[in-house]
Amino acid sequence: MKKLKRSSRLVEMTQYLLAHPHTLISLTAFAERYQSAKSSISEDLAIIKEVFEEEGIGQLHTLAGAAGGVKFKPMMPKETSLDIIKQVCETLQQPDRVLPGGYLYMTDMLGQPELLADVGKMFATAFADRPIDLIMTVETKGISLAYATAACMNIPVVIVRRDNKVTEGSAVSINYVSGSTKRIQTMSLARRALKEQSRVLIIDDFMKVGGTVQGMIDLLHEFNATVAGVGVFVESGAIESEERLLQDYVSLAKLTAIDLKTKQAEVVPGNYFST
Amino acid sequence: MKKLKRSSRLVEMTQYLLAHPHTLISLTAFAERYQSAKSSISEDLAIIKEVFEEEGIGQLHTLAGAAGGVKFKPMMPKETSLDIIKQVCETLQQPDRVLPGGYLYMTDMLGQPELLADVGKMFATAFADRPIDLIMTVETKGISLAYATAACMNIPVVIVRRDNKVTEGSAVSINYVSGSTKRIQTMSLARRALKEQSRVLIIDDFMKVGGTVQGMIDLLHEFNATVAGVGVFVESGAIESEERLLQDYVSLAKLTAIDLKTKQAEVVPGNYFST
Repeated sequence: MKKLKRSSRLVEMTQYLLAHPHTLISLTAFAERYQSAKSSISEDLAIIKEVFEEEGIGQLHTLAGAAGGVKFKPMMPKETSLDIIKQVCETLQQPDRVLPGGYLYMTDMLGQPELLADVGKMFATAFADRPIDLIMTVETKGISLAYATAACMNIPVVIVRRDNKVTEGSAVSINYVSGSTKRIQTMSLARRALKEQSRVLIIDDFMKVGGTVQGMIDLLHEFNATVAGVGVFVESGAIESEERLLQDYVSLAKLTAIDLKTKQAEVVPGNYFST
Repeated sequence: MKKLKRSSRLVEMTQYLLAHPHTLISLTAFAERYQSAKSSISEDLAIIKEVFEEEGIGQLHTLAGAAGGVKFKPMMPKETSLDIIKQVCETLQQPDRVLPGGYLYMTDMLGQPELLADVGKMFATAFADRPIDLIMTVETKGISLAYATAACMNIPVVIVRRDNKVTEGSAVSINYVSGSTKRIQTMSLARRALKEQSRVLIIDDFMKVGGTVQGMIDLLHEFNATVAGVGVFVESGAIESEERLLQDYVSLAKLTAIDLKTKQAEVVPGNYFST
């Protein structure tokens, strides 16, 4: 890269940090990249750090010393998150979203890139300080949320399949009981998709009793991997809490009631905002 | 937002533009956001434009006049793309990726956030000038690519299901013949997922004869929607070209041969690089 003026360097460094979240970049690497003194780089980083933190873009962690450097962690302030989730709740309460069987239509929202980026940032904030090697979800609707979170955290995603596809090689399958339908179902994961001892963040779009998430946790045990956290976009609160199979999870929104006659759902911010 | 110094404003504007690709932002909005004169904003944008274009981050289109503003289009130069795809080809040629049945294991690569962001940017570049309302893929392995592309283009994603899930409401289903296996399969899309007349970009991970993509095109016709383009990550070139069901598509890599005995695959850059 050719030597840049400070103003241009600030633009380039900003985009570089944003494109490499949760990655330690040494001051030396930056100094070489921009052919500048480390002292100038440090001054630039101080400016970027102030803007990122004041405007709620994320944290810039600087590590001093020979092995030092800088790491950008995308973070969203809780007030900003709550404003966005309140809008989500309003949208989810639109009457035409209540489907036969008492399901809530939210597939369209899980396809909106801006909302996904926001939600990914919320999960990245909620789990920013936990050591995580991998994000796991089960097909299909949680996949976009898993990738949005992964993009913020710079962590790969594995997708548990509801069948055993030949194109994945040998796989581990387990049976689990879907909490809502009480039916026995199968989920499977390619043997090579997950290393032993991995610390795994589970992300899903919807959780009622938690049977599907519990299935993923059981599957992790088969791989000698551990659960680093569970994040769900919407939880259903319309069940007794003792029915719930797991207690330690983060939800961004909560479906508290659904009236099939009036086609009215009630959705409120989730437990992420009550702690 | 409080009034910022120029250096801070450059950082903030850079992150704002990157977070809002393919979105027209008026100079007035920027001037108000930063409590600065439009002339200062224009100077800042000129600096950002120069860096973005010189460093291959994307294009900054400025529209003059009262309704004027600026639009950031993430773009990746072809040389950069080719370097990345050459590495992808090398990785895909690792012998342990050839699975029984002659399949190529690439699920792990489709879970890497950095590679996905790069590939998304390549598709966003390839289709930057076409009017597109929606990106479509079929579950499961193309989903991450579809979202990575959508994030660059600021376009929603719809996912075609291989079954008809009750949580989606009424759906349109079609039968199609998978070109490779010659089996009749079903795919379906929720009625409300796609508006009539939508211009749709189809993204998928792998294409051999093109049966699955052709199925998606047939499904689009059921919705009176049109195909704006087809992008596949890897195409299989190990078939006669007259067997291929469609000719107008962009591939980033091409599987030219697979030897089940030696477990050796040959993968080369796709047709995107030969035009």
